[in-house]
Amino acid sequence: MGLPEDVYRASYPLPMTLGHEGAGVVDKLGEGAVGLEVGESVAVYGPWGCGYCYACSQGHENYCENAARLGITPPGLGSPGSMAEYMLIDSPRHLVPLGDLDPVQNVSLTDAGLTPYHAIKASLGKLVPGSVAVVIGAGGLGHVAIQILRAITPATVIALDLNEEKLSLAQEVGAHYAFISDAGAVDKIQQLTLSRGVQAVFDFVGAQPTLDLGSKLVRVGGDQVIVGVGSGQLPVGMLDKPFESSIRAPYWGYRSELFEVLELARSGAVKVETEVFSLGDAPQAYEKLHAGKLRGRAVIVP
Amino acid sequence: MGLPEDVYRASYPLPMTLGHEGAGVVDKLGEGAVGLEVGESVAVYGPWGCGYCYACSQGHENYCENAARLGITPPGLGSPGSMAEYMLIDSPRHLVPLGDLDPVQNVSLTDAGLTPYHAIKASLGKLVPGSVAVVIGAGGLGHVAIQILRAITPATVIALDLNEEKLSLAQEVGAHYAFISDAGAVDKIQQLTLSRGVQAVFDFVGAQPTLDLGSKLVRVGGDQVIVGVGSGQLPVGMLDKPFESSIRAPYWGYRSELFEVLELARSGAVKVETEVFSLGDAPQAYEKLHAGKLRGRAVIVP
Amino acid sequence: MGLPEDVYRASYPLPMTLGHEGAGVVDKLGEGAVGLEVGESVAVYGPWGCGYCYACSQGHENYCENAARLGITPPGLGSPGSMAEYMLIDSPRHLVPLGDLDPVQNVSLTDAGLTPYHAIKASLGKLVPGSVAVVIGAGGLGHVAIQILRAITPATVIALDLNEEKLSLAQEVGAHYAFISDAGAVDKIQQLTLSRGVQAVFDFVGAQPTLDLGSKLVRVGGDQVIVGVGSGQLPVGMLDKPFESSIRAPYWGYRSELFEVLELARSGAVKVETEVFSLGDAPQAYEKLHAGKLRGRAVIVP
Amino acid sequence: MGLPEDVYRASYPLPMTLGHEGAGVVDKLGEGAVGLEVGESVAVYGPWGCGYCYACSQGHENYCENAARLGITPPGLGSPGSMAEYMLIDSPRHLVPLGDLDPVQNVSLTDAGLTPYHAIKASLGKLVPGSVAVVIGAGGLGHVAIQILRAITPATVIALDLNEEKLSLAQEVGAHYAFISDAGAVDKIQQLTLSRGVQAVFDFVGAQPTLDLGSKLVRVGGDQVIVGVGSGQLPVGMLDKPFESSIRAPYWGYRSELFEVLELARSGAVKVETEVFSLGDAPQAYEKLHAGKLRGRAVIVP
Repeated sequence: MGLPEDVYRASYPLPMTLGHEGAGVVDKLGEGAVGLEVGESVAVYGPWGCGYCYACSQGHENYCENAARLGITPPGLGSPGSMAEYMLIDSPRHLVPLGDLDPVQNVSLTDAGLTPYHAIKASLGKLVPGSVAVVIGAGGLGHVAIQILRAITPATVIALDLNEEKLSLAQEVGAHYAFISDAGAVDKIQQLTLSRGVQAVFDFVGAQPTLDLGSKLVRVGGDQVIVGVGSGQLPVGMLDKPFESSIRAPYWGYRSELFEVLELARSGAVKVETEVFSLGDAPQAYEKLHAGKLRGRAVIVP
Repeated sequence: MGLPEDVYRASYPLPMTLGHEGAGVVDKLGEGAVGLEVGESVAVYGPWGCGYCYACSQGHENYCENAARLGITPPGLGSPGSMAEYMLIDSPRHLVPLGDLDPVQNVSLTDAGLTPYHAIKASLGKLVPGSVAVVIGAGGLGHVAIQILRAITPATVIALDLNEEKLSLAQEVGAHYAFISDAGAVDKIQQLTLSRGVQAVFDFVGAQPTLDLGSKLVRVGGDQVIVGVGSGQLPVGMLDKPFESSIRAPYWGYRSELFEVLELARSGAVKVETEVFSLGDAPQAYEKLHAGKLRGRAVIVP
Repeated sequence: MGLPEDVYRASYPLPMTLGHEGAGVVDKLGEGAVGLEVGESVAVYGPWGCGYCYACSQGHENYCENAARLGITPPGLGSPGSMAEYMLIDSPRHLVPLGDLDPVQNVSLTDAGLTPYHAIKASLGKLVPGSVAVVIGAGGLGHVAIQILRAITPATVIALDLNEEKLSLAQEVGAHYAFISDAGAVDKIQQLTLSRGVQAVFDFVGAQPTLDLGSKLVRVGGDQVIVGVGSGQLPVGMLDKPFESSIRAPYWGYRSELFEVLELARSGAVKVETEVFSLGDAPQAYEKLHAGKLRGRAVIVP
Repeated sequence: MGLPEDVYRASYPLPMTLGHEGAGVVDKLGEGAVGLEVGESVAVYGPWGCGYCYACSQGHENYCENAARLGITPPGLGSPGSMAEYMLIDSPRHLVPLGDLDPVQNVSLTDAGLTPYHAIKASLGKLVPGSVAVVIGAGGLGHVAIQILRAITPATVIALDLNEEKLSLAQEVGAHYAFISDAGAVDKIQQLTLSRGVQAVFDFVGAQPTLDLGSKLVRVGGDQVIVGVGSGQLPVGMLDKPFESSIRAPYWGYRSELFEVLELARSGAVKVETEVFSLGDAPQAYEKLHAGKLRGRAVIVP
């Protein structure tokens, strides 16, 4: 998701229910909960904020100004998460209606869809016809990023990965080109862009080699967007990068963007590969994840 | 405010407490209300929506997709309003922190500030250096519009009104020019703009003569923005207006914009003329308003 | 193209070479012409301006501030046009490189592509996932508009026309829905949008019935864009349309947008149906056009 | 100006006339030069490009895609500059009308105004009411940046410099606060922003200490903009900066932005301190500049 390492490393108060992506059916409404109804399918908007500050007033709860001070944490990342029969949501604003979308098939969009969508949306103005976008890392989030780029931009999409299987997946889901991300990739891309470089690089790895690679690809005015939580670092100064190229590292996404991602799923433009496990088999899901044997995202169904 | 006539005309369920602009001090917090504290000064964000739909997910509750269906109405315009010792607010999201701003002096900004701010903000990209903005009607909302334009744009601001006193006020609060809004005004403005017309007209009257006047002023690509609830109508077609000029009629404003308006007040850039009445004297405030004898906005203090 | 009727009606100085869309191969360069080379394929950017004013400084020559005063007119619409063996271009800025695109197949994009592209681009921010765009008139420009909408937005595209054949073409080139544009169309679209209306209507007819139809479809905050040069007129006021919906009538497009349209052609996303005639057969092309028997755009090849 | 060091270091073909900022009166028009007239005052738009490519099609000649390949260089930086009785301009597009503005008083705006204006304009959307902008280095470009920020944004402006005299100038021209740029500055600014940091830092020095300082000030989503040609470098990664903050180093500005800067001068909002020298005394101007004894910009008048 692009979760910051200090969140990963944080020692959460235990016991804690895991699950930072959630979806399900409304079972009961608290007093004053309006807009939604019992029986309605919903997805959980995860980056919870206070709902009161300037950032939250725009639905940018991922950048809430008060969350740290108030000890507000996302479900599964401090608050009780979604791997449970029932989940308590404090406000309807932390839910987004699924309509006729299947909660099981689409639950991963709350992070694996929302995070790349948000990263891409801030670069949308640069992804005009004739532009080129590079996705580094065609895994969980990257293969969704490729679909999003194809659905909402006319950009040529190039996927880079070290893994041939992931490059195949990248092409299946819409990448125009898929290259092994080695030194040769720079040459191939510079050839495609007449040595001008690309308008945007979305780096779902964030390690030193991918940051270095990305910095060689971005053109004048282009964006290098770090989404993966690697520990790489780029030295940036006045003279080190093409003029007005920028570098940024966003985190998760806005509430309205989750609506938009779900609409992409509804239209068939975006699909997440999922493998379904029962709640009892959840430990096996983590084992497969750890062993790198999961195809797509694991979904735990109680 | 630019309230739609059907709202005005609506027969609200009686009795109903009046007051669609509200501000005060938090007296007590309901369960689950986070982000704000007892004793904090707050302003009421008035255009209440469901808080759940796509529009509300961005704080655009003035355009809530569910409000009509769910019978959600603004305070003082269907729901119990602010002319009372206490006011019940369903969620912190319908409040905006005032900080050290005086609730009495600034309560009117929740409509008389927010409405012109929202109208102006959507035209901001056109109000570059060298541009000209016209404010028609320098009364309650118009005189705030002039201050906002001066604070957030480099545009030359021209005020038009039929009333000399209001034109004086317009210049006091920052208008570069103030003209009687008759036929001569068009000539004067065309002279100032080398016959190119202006980038934006904000019409706080909305009557036939002001719509007609505005349509003679807008340039290629300019905006004619109707805020006043008059009943005027303009015939619009391919050949009737300068290319790509647009016409729109917004309603109230976004939640984040109320934060921004209050910041303008905090910096001293925007002030609303107010006349203060006790709750018992409220009927007199309405009488003065009806007689056109109010200077600025009436504020009722319980 | 959305050419204003006063241009059509204008009595051009005769004789005048026709042809407001042009493309070809650079035969010779004047002194000081840099950036392009003899033998290069180029398209003519038609809405010529002075190149010196503020609008032209951004490549918005279609809205040149000096063209009328200086008597600058587009080729084929006052200046000698493209239906000739050779065409004189005053500056490289009135050309856009075609690269490997065929001048004959793509010449129509200079108007039939650029005009809808420009109309759509200004509404791009509203055409988010889940949005709906309506194209009224699926003819010469409309069928290109459909392709552009599919290529650069995730919007659901609905085509309306009176002609069954054009509705078939609309679906062939990518419209999700195609309806006869009668009273029933409003119901069908309101059903698809849960009675909320659509984010944008692009009207390539501009007659009274299409304007009326469009005004029934646009939602709160939506855009009604008149491109067709009909003589219809809509009465517009504060209370007649959904809040903050806007109406505008653009003209042709920007120079940079022609680059972008040509990139859509290069990627295969946009194609114009063309019928090719020799210069000698040009009168027949006009006859077929007049008789409504042209399939797509006529291209005259000397 | 933010000129890249490789330009400074470049060995220009000698002899070369100096002067990269130019203004004067049109003496004679070449064939085909339209839009301007003999006797008109004009400013020179300096970052010359080819006028033909996609970047130039929008007036972004500072980012011309062909300039390097074609050997196109700015006046005074490769091409003959403005320190001369006459200057040859290849196209009207490299001039901007001054109208009644004095060429001598305003010539410096072509770089010292345009460069900060361009840097600020790309961050404009973040500089809402309540925002804070920091200007590091209140010298030649910095003191103009302060004026521009005050004229086109409602942001609180904080100037940082090591020189008390420059801090005085900063406050004279409109900075709300002016602090010595040492370690204490971070504390003062964090106090002013409730530890949230600022929306934008414009760094007109670009040295290691100012880059480090800036990186401590920028908030979530904020912009660090490097304009000064120092050799500092910041290590940037996923975890080193506030989420979604960005860093970029722009170069000079767009042609349309020079129009806008000149409009700010026309309205009195922006003034450059200038010291005037005769052409014969030009060497003295350079000596004073080198000795740090110039107040503002030197202007050479032939």
